[in-house]
Amino acid sequence: MSANELHGGPSKLGRALCLLAAFRPGDAELTLAELARRTKLPKPTAHRLLGELAEWELVERTENGHRLGVRLFELGALAPLQHRLREAAGPFLADLFETTRSTVHLAVLDGSDVVYVHKLGSRHGPTLQSRLGGRMPAYCTGVGKALLAHAPQAVQQEVIGHPLQRRTPRTIVAPGLVLREIRAVQGRGFAAEHEESAKGIACVAAPVLGTDRRAMAAVSVTRWAHQIDVDRLAPAVHAAAVGIAGVLRSG
Amino acid sequence: MSANELHGGPSKLGRALCLLAAFRPGDAELTLAELARRTKLPKPTAHRLLGELAEWELVERTENGHRLGVRLFELGALAPLQHRLREAAGPFLADLFETTRSTVHLAVLDGSDVVYVHKLGSRHGPTLQSRLGGRMPAYCTGVGKALLAHAPQAVQQEVIGHPLQRRTPRTIVAPGLVLREIRAVQGRGFAAEHEESAKGIACVAAPVLGTDRRAMAAVSVTRWAHQIDVDRLAPAVHAAAVGIAGVLRSG
Repeated sequence: MSANELHGGPSKLGRALCLLAAFRPGDAELTLAELARRTKLPKPTAHRLLGELAEWELVERTENGHRLGVRLFELGALAPLQHRLREAAGPFLADLFETTRSTVHLAVLDGSDVVYVHKLGSRHGPTLQSRLGGRMPAYCTGVGKALLAHAPQAVQQEVIGHPLQRRTPRTIVAPGLVLREIRAVQGRGFAAEHEESAKGIACVAAPVLGTDRRAMAAVSVTRWAHQIDVDRLAPAVHAAAVGIAGVLRSG
Repeated sequence: MSANELHGGPSKLGRALCLLAAFRPGDAELTLAELARRTKLPKPTAHRLLGELAEWELVERTENGHRLGVRLFELGALAPLQHRLREAAGPFLADLFETTRSTVHLAVLDGSDVVYVHKLGSRHGPTLQSRLGGRMPAYCTGVGKALLAHAPQAVQQEVIGHPLQRRTPRTIVAPGLVLREIRAVQGRGFAAEHEESAKGIACVAAPVLGTDRRAMAAVSVTRWAHQIDVDRLAPAVHAAAVGIAGVLRSG
C-alpha cells in the first residue's frame, strides 16, 4: 500500500474517476472485465468502486455490467458554461433551424477540439457524426475555424503546431493555409467549411463574440455540400451568433 | 482516522462525489466556503478533493471558486440511455417542432420525477422552467402522466402514496383523480395537462412504448393554455412518439 493510499491520497478517487472516464462514445454498457482491463484496476477494486459510484447513481448496474447513470447526465447538464450557452442560444438556434431546415450546431473550443453543446438535427440533410458532448478537431470544422479566429494566438499556434490529419482530399493541413483561413474568418465574420471534415458535407459558421472580441462559442448550419449556398446562409448564421452574444452579455 | 479511511474505504470517494452533488441548478460557481458548508467537509479536505476533481476536469477553478467542468458535461452526454433516446428522437422532435412551432420536450421517468432529456424551445410560446437534465414531478406534467400510465403499478402507487403539492389551483392532488388521469391516458394514447404545473401553460404528451408496453420516454408539445388545441396536436405528438419507438426497437 502506498503512502498515498494509506493517507486516503489521490489514488482512490483517481481510480473511481478513471472508471467513469473509461466509458467512450458508443459504449452502451461495459462488463466488469472490460472496465478492469481499460483502467488496469484489479477486478475486485473495480467492483468495489463501481458499487460506490452506483450508490451515487453516477453509474447504473445492468444485466451484464455497468453503464453511465442518470445522475451523471443531470450533473453534466448543470455544467454552467455549457448550460448558460444552451439556454441563451436555444431560441436563436431554433429560429435558424426553422428558417434553414438544416442541422444547426452550437460548439465551444476545448484545447484543439470543438465540443458540441447543442445540436438540432434535420431529417432533410446528411447524417452527421456530431453529437451533444462530442468532439471534433477545430482546424477542419466550420465552428472550429470560427472559434480559432477569435482565440488567443497561443491557441492558434498550438493547433497548427501539431501535424494535422487529412480527413478528406479537401482538408486543409498546411499550417500557413490554416492560418490564412482563420484570418479570412476575422475579416468577413463567418467561416465556411467545404468537405474538409467529411465528404459531401459543408457548413457555414459564425463566432459568438464577447466584449473582449474573444469567441465564447460558435454557431453553424450544415448541409449537403452540393446544396449549400454560403451567401444565403451566412447572414442568418451571423445574425443568430450576434443575437446569442447579446443575450450572454446582458445576462 | 476511521477503518474505512485507513483502507481507502467509501468515505473519500463519497466525499468527492458529495462535492459534485453540492452543485444545484443556477449555481454558476461556488466558493470553497459554500462548498464546505453544503458538504459539511472541513475546508482543507474540500480544497484537496476539488484539486483532484479539477485534475480530471470534472470541476474547473474560477476566480472565486469552482464550477462543474467540461469533462462532466462530456461524460454526462455519454450516459447511454439518455444519449440513445436523444439520437433516436432528434429528427422526430425537430419535425414536431417545425410543424407545431411550439416547445417540444423529451423526458424519462426517474423515481417520482421526470428528467428532461431533450428540449427544443420555441420563441413564440411561454418561457418554461424546464431544462436539459432538469426535473419536474411526474403527477402534474403531461410527460409525467404519459410515463406513469405505462409504468409498473408499484411506481404509480409510490407516486400517489405521498402528499401531492398543489402547484396551481388546477393541480390534481387527490390520489384517486391522479389514477383516473393515468387510466385515461392508457385509453386514448396521449396525456394532456392544463395549467396543472404552472399557470397559463398547457401541453399534450404521448408515451414512447417498448415492446413490453412500458414507456421508455415521453414526448410533449407545450403552448400557452389559451392557445392549445389538444385535438389538433395529439395526432402529431402521438405520431412522433410512435416514430421514436420504432427507431428504438429496431436499434
